[in-house]
Parts: sequence; structure tokens; C-alpha cells
Amino acid sequence: MVLRGLKQFHHTLSAIVTMSDSGGSNRRLRDEFGLLPTSDLRQCLVALADESGGVGLLRKLFMYRFEKGNGIAGMTFGNLFMAALTDIVGSQAEAIRKTGKVLRIKGSVIPVTFTDANLYATYENGHTVNEEHLIDEPTHDGKLKITHVSLKPQAEANPDALKVIKQADLIVLGPGDLYTSIIPNLLVSGIADALIHAKGKIVYVLNLMTKFGQTYNFTASDHIHVLEQFIGTSLKAVVVNSDTFPKDALDAYAKCNEAPVVDDLGNEYFSVIRTPLVNESVHEKSSADTLVRSLIRHDSDALSNVLVSLL
Amino acid sequence: MVLRGLKQFHHTLSAIVTMSDSGGSNRRLRDEFGLLPTSDLRQCLVALADESGGVGLLRKLFMYRFEKGNGIAGMTFGNLFMAALTDIVGSQAEAIRKTGKVLRIKGSVIPVTFTDANLYATYENGHTVNEEHLIDEPTHDGKLKITHVSLKPQAEANPDALKVIKQADLIVLGPGDLYTSIIPNLLVSGIADALIHAKGKIVYVLNLMTKFGQTYNFTASDHIHVLEQFIGTSLKAVVVNSDTFPKDALDAYAKCNEAPVVDDLGNEYFSVIRTPLVNESVHEKSSADTLVRSLIRHDSDALSNVLVSLL
Repeated sequence: MVLRGLKQFHHTLSAIVTMSDSGGSNRRLRDEFGLLPTSDLRQCLVALADESGGVGLLRKLFMYRFEKGNGIAGMTFGNLFMAALTDIVGSQAEAIRKTGKVLRIKGSVIPVTFTDANLYATYENGHTVNEEHLIDEPTHDGKLKITHVSLKPQAEANPDALKVIKQADLIVLGPGDLYTSIIPNLLVSGIADALIHAKGKIVYVLNLMTKFGQTYNFTASDHIHVLEQFIGTSLKAVVVNSDTFPKDALDAYAKCNEAPVVDDLGNEYFSVIRTPLVNESVHEKSSADTLVRSLIRHDSDALSNVLVSLL
Repeated sequence: MVLRGLKQFHHTLSAIVTMSDSGGSNRRLRDEFGLLPTSDLRQCLVALADESGGVGLLRKLFMYRFEKGNGIAGMTFGNLFMAALTDIVGSQAEAIRKTGKVLRIKGSVIPVTFTDANLYATYENGHTVNEEHLIDEPTHDGKLKITHVSLKPQAEANPDALKVIKQADLIVLGPGDLYTSIIPNLLVSGIADALIHAKGKIVYVLNLMTKFGQTYNFTASDHIHVLEQFIGTSLKAVVVNSDTFPKDALDAYAKCNEAPVVDDLGNEYFSVIRTPLVNESVHEKSSADTLVRSLIRHDSDALSNVLVSLL
């Protein structure tokens, strides 16, 4: 959402992405193709891709997940595309660059690391899981707090990621799953240090909703306290939604133990930007029978306008 | 080879392709995706595709066959691409058109039919097979002559194929496997009739080598007699290679019961064009240990020059 909004502006965009997904198509990329997982990466490439003409069609293909075929159903076209291309060009790093060219992306998509590492999480009851998708789709009690996360083996930062952090005028964290999309970047050796020394302002875009299994009952300040621990420095600005949500959408989320992130931020040392950020489609569609949990989303334009105003 | 050569000229090219492949990746497209097979089609698309830049890379991907992945190894990227695209755009015909656009092909690639038909062949000993790949890779004695071929169910011509035959200034048949690549087109209802009434000259490019299982020991006139039976009209011109082949390449073919097609054509009613047509790489590489049967190929440029001279 952020990238798709920001690509309309004429700024240089660099998206740093986690490489520790482990579910479905990604697990197969790792186990059967010996490749690093590419789901987050694929979504960033799609967000920054040219949406017109033949490239626009390729972009759609990149989002496509096969529904048929023994051994093929469940795989995403984008992952198969990058697996084939890696074999042709000889390295996954080069395949990612070439894919960006083929999709004519605005900006660049940078894997945070090329270390093949798994995300480990330990919960307040001592339970530990050793894969990203076990955090995302917990088989344990999702109300439990995470007390420790790490990457094993310890991942080394991609030098390109360090370089763009150093050069950036604005560094945007989130929105996204706190423990599986944002923090895994900060666990990579060198990234937190680069953020501490970065000249660019660090902005955190708070999630609209809590996430069962990760941030159950978390308020805005809960999110921020966790994040600041991992960065090792304080945030300069936080973007918080001030919009309300339709009741039936909230009911759907409540069934999954998820609720709006409560804004409990006072006049702290950092700047808090409060503005309506909810995509309108949630209001339009909220009366439909087809209501799904994924309805509540940031509005791409509203969010990117706020971010650009911080430059 | 023909298409790749001809695309350098500024003529309007239309490639009509069989849709009755049944081997490997095609069988799975049919059985698991409910789609018509696309191997011949894919090769024509690749031949006519833009070979530069990002599209050139896509073209390479289209030729790629997966070597890893449970259920994925053996599939071609191009077939998966077209399966995904068919699902997105809603029809295989539209997916083929869109693929042509994405690959920026020079000209058009036209399925001869959209009927899901299998190729049946009966041999001189009465044995019948009911799939294209059983003709291509015979499990019976490949020296047997084919006495009858048909499509079941009877296939109806794609109107676009009839249209381009009607408009063509020159209609090129071959080179290619006589019974599995050329004749399946002529078995489709309406195609032979369109050829009989076409204003364009019909030219047949003879294969360089015989093919075990299809044209064992066939001379040039054997090929022509079979072909004319299926067209129902006589050929206006035949293009025959006059080049020789290196002995070691011939030895490799001989082990597979294949040999050069003997030019036994006299001063018949049609025009016979005799010219060197063998790709030079067979001479360059013929001393290598890695000699493979597929070495003897038409030279793309030499062949297309001859064809253009017939316009």
C-alpha cells in the first residue's frame, strides 16, 4: 500500500524486504529449489511495477496463485518466475534485479539479507516456534505475548540495504505485521546500527488493527515500545489513523480476536501525525454478505501524501 | 527456424500451429488444467518474439523447462505462463493473443483449431495409437509405415486460420515432422479446402532427415505424395537441401535409424528449388564428443532467403 502510493511521486524509492517467509509457496522454494523465500519481495515488486500494457498483465500474473495442477496448485506464478529466472541468470540476487527491470518497477526492491535464516519466536509461557508461518498462523494460544525473537543462523545485511538506509531522506517502517514483517529486518546484523546512524527521519506507520498471535490487545504505545527496543533508537514520527471503522467490519475482526489499535499516545517526545487513513472500500462494502477480515486497509493515497509531507 | 528467419523481413507473418500435442507438459495442461496443448504454439511464439531487453529475457524464460520441484520438474515455464494467463483473461484464445503482445511477436500465431482432439495413427500392420506422442516416440517398430491418420473428435478450423490462408501470398508447409506437425493441420475440417482455394503459392520445405516412426526410409517424393493426398491439391514449389552432412553427424542419426532425405525428384510439374540449407554449426561441432542427434538443422537465414525469393 505504501509503495503503490509513493510510486506516483517522483522520489527515489527503495523497499527493503524480509527474506524469512516460510509458508506454502515459500517453503517449497526453500526446500525444493534451494532458494530464499520471495513472497514479501514479490509483493513489493508488484506494488512498484508499471501497471500499464503488457507489463501490467505480467504484474497481474505475478500476483496469480495456481489453483490447478498436481504439485502446482498453491504455487504463485511470481515465485515460479523467479525460480526459473534464477536458474537462467545464475543467482537469486541477479534474478531479483532482472525481475525489477522486466516489471519496469519505480525504484528498487532490496532483500535485507541473502542469508538463509529462519525466524524464531519465544512466547511468555516459554513456548518457542522456529518458522515465520508458525508465528503468522499460530497453532498455540494467539493471545500470548512474544518475549524473544531471533534469526537463526544470524543473518548478515545485504550491503545494498545498508547503502540505501544511509542515503535515505526518510525511512518508513510499516505498516505491516510487527514480528514477521518489520522486526525480521531489524534482526539482521548491521540494519539497526545503520538506522541509528541514518541521517533520514525514521517514521513508523502504525497498523490499523491488532494481529492475533503477534500483537493481541496491543495499543499504539505497545507497538512503539517493542519497535524501539529492536531499533535501539527513538522514532522521530509516528503516523496514526484517526478514522473510524464500520461496525460490521469490526465484528468480523472481533471473531478473530483482532481490534483497532487504540491510540494511547500522549505528547511524547516524538511527533504524532493523526489523520484519516482507512481505505474507503471498507465503508462501501461493509454491508455486503461477502465481508472478509482483510477489508480494513490503509488508503494508499492518503498514506503516501502524509509520508511525502514529512520529507 | 523458418519463423525466426522470416521475422527479419518486413512481411506480415502468420504461423498456423497444431493443437494436438500430447507429451509431458502438454498432457498435464490437458488433464490437470483442462487446456489445449501449447508446445508447438509456444515454440512459434518464441521464434517470433522480440529478442532484445526485458522481452528477450521473457523469451528465454518461455523456453525454460523446470528441473526442480515436486510436480513442477519437467513443466515448461511457457506452458505455466499460458495456463495462468488463461485463468486471468478467461479464455485460451485470448491468452494466446495476450502472450503474443507481451512477447512483442512479429506477426501472429494462430491455433489451427480450438477443438480438443487427439491424433490417431494406424500402421501398415493394423496397429493403432491414439496420441501424438506415441507417434513421435514409438513403442512399436518405428520402421512401419503409417497408413491412416485422423483427429478424434473431428476438429473444426479456427476462423482466423482460414482467413490468413485465404489472404496469404505464400503458404509455407514445413519443415517439420510430417505426421505430427504438418498433417494434423490438414486434418482439421476446412483447412485443406482453404488451401485448395488459396491464391497464394503453396511451398513445401522438405525435411533434411527422415524420422523413425514416421518417415523411415522416405525419399523426397514419398514425402510429397503423402502430403498431396492430404492437401488434395498439388504443390507449386518444393525446397530441397543440396548440402552434404558431416559423416559423424550421419553416424549419430544412423544409430537411430534416421538418414538424409534422398532427393529423387525429377522434372515434375512443380518447381524444385535445390540449395544448401544446412546450418553451419553441424560442421563446426561435428567433431565434438557431445554430438547429439538434433545437430542437423535448417539454416534460418538461408531458408528464409529462399522463401522470400518466391514471393
